[in-house]
Amino acid sequence: MEYFGGEYDVIVVGAGHAGCEASLAAARMGCRTLLCTMNLDSVGFMPCNPNVGGTAKGHLVREIDALGGEMGVNIDHTFIQSRMLNTSKGPAVHSLRAQADKKKYSNRMKHVLEKERNLDSRQLEVIDIRTEDGEVCGVLTKNGAYFKTKTVILATGTYLKGKVIIGDVSYNSGPNGFMPANDLSQSLLNLGIELRRFKTGTPARVNRRSVDFSKMIIQNGDEKIVPFSFMSDNLEREQIPCYLTYTTDETLKVIKDNIHRSPLYNGSIKSVGPRYCPSIEDKVVRFPDKEKHQIFVEPEGENTEELYIGGASTSLPEDVQVAMYRSISGLENAEILRTGYAIEYDCINPLQLKASLEFKNIEGLFAAGQVNGSSGYEEAASQGIIAGINAVRKANDREPLILKRSDGYIGVLIDDLVTKGTEEPYRMMTSRSEYRLLLRQDNADLRLTDIGYEIGLVSEERYSKFLNRRKAIEEEVERIKNVQINPKKEVIEFLSSLNSTELKKNISLYELIKRPELDYLKLEPLDKDRPNLSYDIVEQVEIIAKYEGYINKQLEQIEQFKKLENKIIPTDIVYNSINGLRLEAIQKLDKVRPVSIGQASRISGVSPADISVLLIYLEREYRLSRENNNEKNK
Amino acid sequence: MEYFGGEYDVIVVGAGHAGCEASLAAARMGCRTLLCTMNLDSVGFMPCNPNVGGTAKGHLVREIDALGGEMGVNIDHTFIQSRMLNTSKGPAVHSLRAQADKKKYSNRMKHVLEKERNLDSRQLEVIDIRTEDGEVCGVLTKNGAYFKTKTVILATGTYLKGKVIIGDVSYNSGPNGFMPANDLSQSLLNLGIELRRFKTGTPARVNRRSVDFSKMIIQNGDEKIVPFSFMSDNLEREQIPCYLTYTTDETLKVIKDNIHRSPLYNGSIKSVGPRYCPSIEDKVVRFPDKEKHQIFVEPEGENTEELYIGGASTSLPEDVQVAMYRSISGLENAEILRTGYAIEYDCINPLQLKASLEFKNIEGLFAAGQVNGSSGYEEAASQGIIAGINAVRKANDREPLILKRSDGYIGVLIDDLVTKGTEEPYRMMTSRSEYRLLLRQDNADLRLTDIGYEIGLVSEERYSKFLNRRKAIEEEVERIKNVQINPKKEVIEFLSSLNSTELKKNISLYELIKRPELDYLKLEPLDKDRPNLSYDIVEQVEIIAKYEGYINKQLEQIEQFKKLENKIIPTDIVYNSINGLRLEAIQKLDKVRPVSIGQASRISGVSPADISVLLIYLEREYRLSRENNNEKNK
Repeated sequence: MEYFGGEYDVIVVGAGHAGCEASLAAARMGCRTLLCTMNLDSVGFMPCNPNVGGTAKGHLVREIDALGGEMGVNIDHTFIQSRMLNTSKGPAVHSLRAQADKKKYSNRMKHVLEKERNLDSRQLEVIDIRTEDGEVCGVLTKNGAYFKTKTVILATGTYLKGKVIIGDVSYNSGPNGFMPANDLSQSLLNLGIELRRFKTGTPARVNRRSVDFSKMIIQNGDEKIVPFSFMSDNLEREQIPCYLTYTTDETLKVIKDNIHRSPLYNGSIKSVGPRYCPSIEDKVVRFPDKEKHQIFVEPEGENTEELYIGGASTSLPEDVQVAMYRSISGLENAEILRTGYAIEYDCINPLQLKASLEFKNIEGLFAAGQVNGSSGYEEAASQGIIAGINAVRKANDREPLILKRSDGYIGVLIDDLVTKGTEEPYRMMTSRSEYRLLLRQDNADLRLTDIGYEIGLVSEERYSKFLNRRKAIEEEVERIKNVQINPKKEVIEFLSSLNSTELKKNISLYELIKRPELDYLKLEPLDKDRPNLSYDIVEQVEIIAKYEGYINKQLEQIEQFKKLENKIIPTDIVYNSINGLRLEAIQKLDKVRPVSIGQASRISGVSPADISVLLIYLEREYRLSRENNNEKNK
Repeated sequence: MEYFGGEYDVIVVGAGHAGCEASLAAARMGCRTLLCTMNLDSVGFMPCNPNVGGTAKGHLVREIDALGGEMGVNIDHTFIQSRMLNTSKGPAVHSLRAQADKKKYSNRMKHVLEKERNLDSRQLEVIDIRTEDGEVCGVLTKNGAYFKTKTVILATGTYLKGKVIIGDVSYNSGPNGFMPANDLSQSLLNLGIELRRFKTGTPARVNRRSVDFSKMIIQNGDEKIVPFSFMSDNLEREQIPCYLTYTTDETLKVIKDNIHRSPLYNGSIKSVGPRYCPSIEDKVVRFPDKEKHQIFVEPEGENTEELYIGGASTSLPEDVQVAMYRSISGLENAEILRTGYAIEYDCINPLQLKASLEFKNIEGLFAAGQVNGSSGYEEAASQGIIAGINAVRKANDREPLILKRSDGYIGVLIDDLVTKGTEEPYRMMTSRSEYRLLLRQDNADLRLTDIGYEIGLVSEERYSKFLNRRKAIEEEVERIKNVQINPKKEVIEFLSSLNSTELKKNISLYELIKRPELDYLKLEPLDKDRPNLSYDIVEQVEIIAKYEGYINKQLEQIEQFKKLENKIIPTDIVYNSINGLRLEAIQKLDKVRPVSIGQASRISGVSPADISVLLIYLEREYRLSRENNNEKNK
């Protein structure tokens, strides 16, 4: 029997990484928000790897943080190891990664939700999304509660019709033995939503006492910890090491000998898995010449002996798994605590979404995270915060917030999903960004915190901290532009001691820093009035000085890009009435319905020639409508 | 496809409170042990009240501890409030209760399991118990692993065919949104095991911020904390208060007006619930004249806003629940985080078990906890430790450990279950014990630690600590028996100041303590050479002195009791060949197959007259066999 449960502005379905950010964003922006989860003890749960960040993903976390999200703050409170990756390369690809204490991460996130004003988090299973005239009006739960709402955000992760597969064994299940959501898929189909089956997987967990670390390479955390959140100050913590090891010939043999028993290769898994996070059997089959594969052994927390076997996710039969894991160096006697598995789940085709993450054909219905065909906690959280923001803006009849590709990786991620679509679980990578020298993890706040404040998600406290930081950077850049270095004898000698060539004439400190062999810190002896600045300020100043040329070039590219993004395509355009457009282009354009020429140009199957046709068409239409207006105005 | 997973001495199915104690006991006694759980994240989980101990249950915890179990140590590490209950009454009913941080309790227990030598804890679902010639030989898991074993302990709690019921909504589920175990029941039926359906329930959880504590009575923890474990030293901790409140007239009205929608009263729940832990609707119906009912508001942990609404478990429809909870004083604006529910599950008739907790007709198969028809974490853990011990003894071809009713509440609990059976979830109460003046929580170690050491479960460390304590108690009792108090003027004046009557002649300090108005501490001024002893020693000395008469009387009763317990009934006895036994007695005796006259006398439906018949019969049989032996020996 149905009963009226209450009314909300925003209802979020699922409390994983997308759902948590979505509901917190909505509540913090002042909307009455309900977060529904099938199990309050799995809030913010990490069903796979015990870490946050990593290449490109670390950028996403800092962008979420810059907008006023929770993921960065949460991992700062609960990490057990922190590392800045790729520090031997340029700043664009520096990426922060932290190992999490999984249980602490989840518990703290749950507690944050419980304390958030405007937010009700409840253990409820949503089984039906209700609409009226193509607009969301409410949801129905398994226990019979009908909640009225203006907007709903789907953040169902891998739970929709979840099915776990281990060799020839399969059964309905959510991740890690949690209950699957079996009812909601039908409701989505009834709404005309196109569903697909994707799959992902996870490796075994083993007991620490059974591992021979002497055969592995220890990986310690950084001595100087850089926090994820721009709000966190110095973090010091006892860190726990990870380990690197390798597969052996025996590993490859076990897998090859049993590949006929792999559900991936014997046809029983038909759904598509993540290309960039393949199972170990996938790697062995796809790279037959590779003699060994890296395996990362990572603790799952501080107060547990469980270790995650990174790089070795699998859906091989359990007996093959045992042999396979025990063939890895150092895991000869591995005691397996949890078996690796693949999980298949219902997700949507993201081409059904606008860049706001709202469904094109259902007003007020948003989707975020793995249900959109992405993979990864960070990708999920990124979509979550944007869906949360845009549900609020929808509820308040405001235009959506759409981050451009030039604003951040979040913009790239969502634009890729809704414009190009994806045929496999989508993972963020720095190579997906055209502007990666600008979209660094170190300047996420400089790119996004103004926006976060403008929309009402960034707190006053965060904003004032941000303004101070920006001011300090600007002042120091200005100051070192005005510090003149004269080619005195001592200066020349000093530079020579740093293997730097002679100075011929006066130069500003700012210009001098550009020399590859020099940097801000090294030049301190020439800079008597240098203020005492924190590392994050110094880092910005140095990057601005050193990379000025490259940065300016990218800024010019962005101007070009913006011109195309600003060429808006009318929503009522009829593509098949446009002469000269190829049939494939018409079909693709019709499917995506891009908002701008920029977006249209990124649709796969739409060629530069098609774009020219479209530009000419739009130019003519524009001229005609102007003439018409002129006529009328006469 | 099945594969060989390995071989164990003991396999435990389920990692709740019974399974944890069972597997730890088995591993600590040196057996290779496998603990199987459907979800490693629900190890030692408390699906209902967030506390351990309480009246009679506190006794069980201390007995488990005295035997070398984990529950006491675990709660000592993870409690957030501790109270000794009933301190205004005699020491027999003093009971310790601690509020647990649920997540910490579960996490620490999981960690203890992971670190235990000889113990493998794994996320595996057991779907079949295999036997050969009536003896357990192995188990099969859902992922296809066959594990060979000598013994299996069923500790499945409420998971077997678990079904959650909320009003007219019901679905397959384990407790708290965990997966149910749907396959194992059929395997048990195939083994000829009789299954029944019991039910239990839990109240809603609400968000702390929505509660008006000004309408409630605060309940703080004790200032001086008594630990559960005899191994724990002084415990100091910041404690978190609980609150007491009451139902209102409105509560009763809401329930009465909607009783037709209660699955308990409209016939949709047919299974039997716990009489001594009834749902709120049960209380209202069964005690129609009672104007209000107590409600206990208890925090679920330190880092959560969730509050447990004790005394108000329910399976009413969700809408009725909302109205019902919001009618309770101080809960007018309650934000419900989790809905209350009833859960039905398969359990066995415990009359199928021996006192060792082994099935009578399946060698090597044991059962412990809720699956035996009990309720409560402590009752489960008590059976768990005994089943663990006896599985080990079975695997080693040794006689089982059977605690007598005079040894402890654990003995009472198991004897009640296997002798009297139970038609509803069985809960321990002090009134169930005949010898409760002896079976106190304060002397559980004095009663049981010798036994625990003898069987190899109590560690050397614990045993030596215990021996020191026992020695200190004995020496102090001896000493105060030898302290003579003379009727000097100062003594008489001192006693008079304590409102105690005059001394006429010399008396020992030991005798003087017996006076109701006096105690060990008050008499310190008369006892110059008193050693500095810890409170737990002083407490024992005082109880021994004060209650000597009562204790001796109970000891005599126990001797009588033991005589009957020692009258062993031959296992091949044919009851229906005994003249004079009533038909009902024959049937009941045949079902229970008691091992002794003592056990037979406790079977409901067996009268004192039947026992006399049985005694005469046994005496004659004994005489005949003695004569036969004499004949042979001639």
